[in-house]
Amino acid sequence: MHAVITGAAGFLGQKLARKLLTGAALSGPDGARSEVKKLTLFDVAAPAPDIAQDRRVSCVVGDIGDGALVRGLIAGGVSSVFHFAAVVSAGAEADFDLGMRVNLDGTRHVLEACRRLKAPPRVVFTSSVAVYGGDMPKIIKDDTPVTPQTSYGAQKAIGEYLLNDMSRKGFIDGRALRLPTIVVRPGKPNKAASTWASSIIREPLQGQDVECPVDPATEMYLLSPRRVVEAFLHAHELPKEKFGFNRALFLPGLTATVAEMLAGLKRAGGQKAVDRVKFVPDPAIRRIVAGWPMRFDAARARALGFKADDSFDQIVRGFVEDDLRRNAA
Amino acid sequence: MHAVITGAAGFLGQKLARKLLTGAALSGPDGARSEVKKLTLFDVAAPAPDIAQDRRVSCVVGDIGDGALVRGLIAGGVSSVFHFAAVVSAGAEADFDLGMRVNLDGTRHVLEACRRLKAPPRVVFTSSVAVYGGDMPKIIKDDTPVTPQTSYGAQKAIGEYLLNDMSRKGFIDGRALRLPTIVVRPGKPNKAASTWASSIIREPLQGQDVECPVDPATEMYLLSPRRVVEAFLHAHELPKEKFGFNRALFLPGLTATVAEMLAGLKRAGGQKAVDRVKFVPDPAIRRIVAGWPMRFDAARARALGFKADDSFDQIVRGFVEDDLRRNAA
Repeated sequence: MHAVITGAAGFLGQKLARKLLTGAALSGPDGARSEVKKLTLFDVAAPAPDIAQDRRVSCVVGDIGDGALVRGLIAGGVSSVFHFAAVVSAGAEADFDLGMRVNLDGTRHVLEACRRLKAPPRVVFTSSVAVYGGDMPKIIKDDTPVTPQTSYGAQKAIGEYLLNDMSRKGFIDGRALRLPTIVVRPGKPNKAASTWASSIIREPLQGQDVECPVDPATEMYLLSPRRVVEAFLHAHELPKEKFGFNRALFLPGLTATVAEMLAGLKRAGGQKAVDRVKFVPDPAIRRIVAGWPMRFDAARARALGFKADDSFDQIVRGFVEDDLRRNAA
Repeated sequence: MHAVITGAAGFLGQKLARKLLTGAALSGPDGARSEVKKLTLFDVAAPAPDIAQDRRVSCVVGDIGDGALVRGLIAGGVSSVFHFAAVVSAGAEADFDLGMRVNLDGTRHVLEACRRLKAPPRVVFTSSVAVYGGDMPKIIKDDTPVTPQTSYGAQKAIGEYLLNDMSRKGFIDGRALRLPTIVVRPGKPNKAASTWASSIIREPLQGQDVECPVDPATEMYLLSPRRVVEAFLHAHELPKEKFGFNRALFLPGLTATVAEMLAGLKRAGGQKAVDRVKFVPDPAIRRIVAGWPMRFDAARARALGFKADDSFDQIVRGFVEDDLRRNAA
């Protein structure tokens, strides 16, 4: 079993890599399941040393917009591809051409390289609930039209259509997951307009002050890194027939207000942790966040066995166990 | 006013060209309306001599998949682009790479060339009701999700997302029209699975026998060439604000059974015309046609002033006046 992860230096890519290296089995094009014997990690930077030094791992540093490089990467006996590589929302909005190159051309390069393999590989594509926008219903359902209002969302939607059509043609065996906001992200804040949703938990639990740019009543649609990694493996393993005529779906998540998130922070870190959060309204961030869908009825994904976190406390606990203790160790 | 038509040797491209050359006015980026002073016609073949010889017309023969050529074509003072060039449904299904090159890369070249102009031009993009597919409701509405089940439909959907996003960014001022089956097409049958819908009217009215591969109860969603050309001009002239957050819509059409179409043929050409139609079932064509949506509630397009044909008789009359008499003259 030879798997490829693009965007493998990102936090989700690294978490998935660790899961695969600790024995998670994958199904091949012939249906047989086995552990990963070879893992190719591709990104603009190298992953953490504990991953990179594993004897099963090959690291390739490069640009996903380089078609020849991607074709060289996804070749030979590759049977599974997890495609995370992307320019995030704010980045694709600020630099249209970069977003097109990485999010659209990069995805096309990955799919075209997969098509050249002898057996159609399973491909799990990272999409986003940013494919929704404009005049939306109060609750997003499986039949809500995809009308993105950002370049990132448009590029993700286009990736889904390519993946769906190439799966229908039998070139690949694709699956696309629209992700909620992932909380709690380890590491540093990034340029996403949602970065505060992780920061208001992560920083106080590490003894740092943090600013919250939105008010306590603001809702977010959330999923933990643990559940996302499980979802990627589950999507990979589901028989393609389960997806029917549409390989794309949004994942079940948890809708929580900032106040509810801070109540969870208090249970995990006490009042002193909550006291580290200062509300400093940022009109630009508030405006962007106000345009996001926050309530979803993920009936189709739930019926297929995808799972949301049970509670915000569970999300915080996962962060403490997987990231805080790991870093402390 | 300098307009460009891609796919200008096709029957719709030529009809639009004639309309523009006989005085139809277009709005420029500054809002002022005027007649077309320069018309660039682009296709893999030259248009009819009566069009090509007009002193306002420049004809360019070439491949829409050639980005440099398209950039040269859409340059300088171009203020309007009508983008018809495409590989049709059966063609894009039979040759995936050709469909991607013409329908996806070609559209992207057109939009990118438009983006380089000094003022964002109005761009009218030919989409199709083939963007719908899979499990559909009985009646397609404005909020029915886009889930194409052909490569042609997927490529048209992707074109819409590109056009929408580049319009939102202010790079272009785009509008996308999803066309019903156009009846009566002049000329010869083509490779579309719907070609018989024109043939069963066109051939008998010219004294030729014709085979109908589907049964009399089969429904089709139809629009005449006259109404399509009107729709392209109307879409071009509508203020962008009228489209709201989604520049794509499907056009109002007429749903008619084959039996109703043949009743119209009888009124236009008598029993002797109808006797020229022989039912010769073709299981492959019947299966494809059975997967098409046939009933639409085009509320949004109607509210914006787009019009269906009043009756099938009107569709036949338009063909007789515009195409049969023209050829006879």
